[in-house]
Amino acid sequence: MKLYGYNLSLASFRVRIAFALKGIDREDAYLDLLKGDQFEPEFQKLNPQMVVPALITDEAQVIGQSMAILEYLDETHPEPPLLPGDAGGRARVRQLAQIAIADCHPLVVPRIRKYLTATLGHTEDELLAWIRHWMGLANDAIEAILGDGQAGKYAHGSQVTLADLCLIPQVAGSQRFKCDMSGTPNLMKLFETCMAEDAFMAAHAKNQPDFQAP
Amino acid sequence: MKLYGYNLSLASFRVRIAFALKGIDREDAYLDLLKGDQFEPEFQKLNPQMVVPALITDEAQVIGQSMAILEYLDETHPEPPLLPGDAGGRARVRQLAQIAIADCHPLVVPRIRKYLTATLGHTEDELLAWIRHWMGLANDAIEAILGDGQAGKYAHGSQVTLADLCLIPQVAGSQRFKCDMSGTPNLMKLFETCMAEDAFMAAHAKNQPDFQAP
Repeated sequence: MKLYGYNLSLASFRVRIAFALKGIDREDAYLDLLKGDQFEPEFQKLNPQMVVPALITDEAQVIGQSMAILEYLDETHPEPPLLPGDAGGRARVRQLAQIAIADCHPLVVPRIRKYLTATLGHTEDELLAWIRHWMGLANDAIEAILGDGQAGKYAHGSQVTLADLCLIPQVAGSQRFKCDMSGTPNLMKLFETCMAEDAFMAAHAKNQPDFQAP
Repeated sequence: MKLYGYNLSLASFRVRIAFALKGIDREDAYLDLLKGDQFEPEFQKLNPQMVVPALITDEAQVIGQSMAILEYLDETHPEPPLLPGDAGGRARVRQLAQIAIADCHPLVVPRIRKYLTATLGHTEDELLAWIRHWMGLANDAIEAILGDGQAGKYAHGSQVTLADLCLIPQVAGSQRFKCDMSGTPNLMKLFETCMAEDAFMAAHAKNQPDFQAP
């Protein structure tokens, strides 16, 4: 399989963790989202949405959208499973994942930041306030759910699930934009637990070949 | 089961279609998002994210996030199935769903519209341009994927899938904000096909008891 990604992309980060946990080999293709590589016609032909990650499967199918890729990897490479065995547990895991994937991350990606500054003329301070506002709201909701008694060592019990694969990049993004994390101790503890593990650390932006120190 | 929703909520619309297709009974609770019912402490206790839809299952579990609810309903009420039988097909369906759910809809919900106008001081015209820009980008990507040869009567072959449940509300939202749909004939044809069916029509905003004509 071949994965189109970008070191700082939180959505790519999620998928890289899944590859590492499941021990799946892959070829990497690196797009620099800040330079606009994703808008090259060649990539647009592969993924008309012009975003990463995009996975090319062994059957030459192109899959976009990190959640679709994660579910696909879990279905085709079931060990270790990244979803609980019960429907209620799976729903809780997917809810946690989607709070980050759907209701937070799309609000802070490069294309939004560019629209807010270049098209709408906002300052860097106004942009940062926007980012911290939406990340803070999501982090608060996640924190409350992590406190419902169903978290264990990980976001859902004692096994890594898709929730962890989405929440760890959520924290990494929050840190990049210097969000105040003092009100989300459960989430920070989960971050520290996971980042002490090889699969999460190997998938972090700073450990990708295309990473450039700021 | 009990569903907290709002007639104009596109995410609630997705879930209502699933209930209708599967013939599942439910109790409804209506929140007026424009009045701020979702911020009432009683509801926050149920769903700390303070958004709809939120489903209370027969086991008294609260599930937020429409995609988590849709997958839960499909797992617990398997007929008719809303995901294809092959992993590649499921990935394509989830990709289409997530383009609407993750990368478009969260950019145009009431809380974002309020931030753009009340906090950032934008005009109604600037707000509309924002909405149409992001809905247009998503609709273009969806249109390209619908043209890949794998669509049939529906977004994926000849059976309704989660993709349809997410794309039909995407079009309904596009119409509400008067987006130009002339460049997305495949998507519009899908909309007309689905809206001719009882389950989709029954789930539309205008057929909800809490709907108020503008």
